[in-house]
Amino acid sequence: MRFVVPFDAGTPKTRLGPLLDPDERRAFARVMLSDVLATLDATAAEPTVLATGPVDCEVPVEIDDRPLTPAVNAELEAAKEPIGIVMADLPLLTPETIERLLDPTADLVIAPGRGGGTNAFVARHAEFRVDYHGTSYTDHLEIAREMGATVETVDSHRLATDIDERADLVEVLIHGADTRSRDWLIEEGIRLTTDEGRVGIERSGPSG
Amino acid sequence: MRFVVPFDAGTPKTRLGPLLDPDERRAFARVMLSDVLATLDATAAEPTVLATGPVDCEVPVEIDDRPLTPAVNAELEAAKEPIGIVMADLPLLTPETIERLLDPTADLVIAPGRGGGTNAFVARHAEFRVDYHGTSYTDHLEIAREMGATVETVDSHRLATDIDERADLVEVLIHGADTRSRDWLIEEGIRLTTDEGRVGIERSGPSG
Repeated sequence: MRFVVPFDAGTPKTRLGPLLDPDERRAFARVMLSDVLATLDATAAEPTVLATGPVDCEVPVEIDDRPLTPAVNAELEAAKEPIGIVMADLPLLTPETIERLLDPTADLVIAPGRGGGTNAFVARHAEFRVDYHGTSYTDHLEIAREMGATVETVDSHRLATDIDERADLVEVLIHGADTRSRDWLIEEGIRLTTDEGRVGIERSGPSG
Repeated sequence: MRFVVPFDAGTPKTRLGPLLDPDERRAFARVMLSDVLATLDATAAEPTVLATGPVDCEVPVEIDDRPLTPAVNAELEAAKEPIGIVMADLPLLTPETIERLLDPTADLVIAPGRGGGTNAFVARHAEFRVDYHGTSYTDHLEIAREMGATVETVDSHRLATDIDERADLVEVLIHGADTRSRDWLIEEGIRLTTDEGRVGIERSGPSG
């Protein structure tokens, strides 16, 4: 199945500042993308990157500089077969989590992100379109309902954990054992801390 | 299977202040507990509340005023059969998520919480003991590994979402359609907000 991975080639992940400077944020976004692509590559998914600008990677890249919603809707409109959309900031994905998106036969198989976003979906209904603004997960359920489409939700912490903020890095360090994203963070001196039983993040400066 | 639900009957959920005052936090903690118990009641799990003080509820209550770790370890030590432990601040649990804890046959079936905690587990190994301090999820994996116990992790956003902070309430409002916890929040005037595409929480005062 064709899987489209939208990617912001510009200045992504602003909420990871000041922990990471703009160049580091750009580098980390690319490392996360490479984790997502490596995971997709281990499944029946055939990834294409849908980027706002040039990206150097080993899968096909399509450039569309429009905002996320119209760019993804153009993909959905052009699709003649079922199609998957998965965000590029989900380094904790595993082949098993992708299978959980692929296995159900519902018209829309959807994975919510923490905070009400839509982190991934598979659409088998030709008319389904997205609107990523606000609580897009509930909006997408509503859009599907209005179309009479069947819906299945994938309940996964790995799929729910898009990496936007400092606290999200805790999840990468804990659950990202085999990811390049975790290695990258560690190389940058980013470590877990425990303060009165609560887990956080600190940076000790590049260790290399 | 016996399922123990630890519950802080004292002054729980301090991180939900100042949105909720101490009495409200106590009330909300009890409502979340009632959701967890109602969910367990719809499965093969037989719940007991393990509370630090008296709690009025419809399942057996055991009082143990020690901290969480020794109180739970006393339960594990006394258990003659497989036993489940599930936290009381998981109102998003459904019977399906509990089944995902019950179905595997591993010695330890464990569900991480966001931030590295351990939100639920089923133990089938007589010697397994807990240590809830810090990143208890990885500590528990390590404890199981040292014992030679088999381990299976349940990857669930619902199980990962313990309700500690303001941002966690977003998840209750979005995913808690059939919960008393969501109803309670709405009655208290707590609503979702969307500010430049990011979802948050606001309180307009009690609506009643």
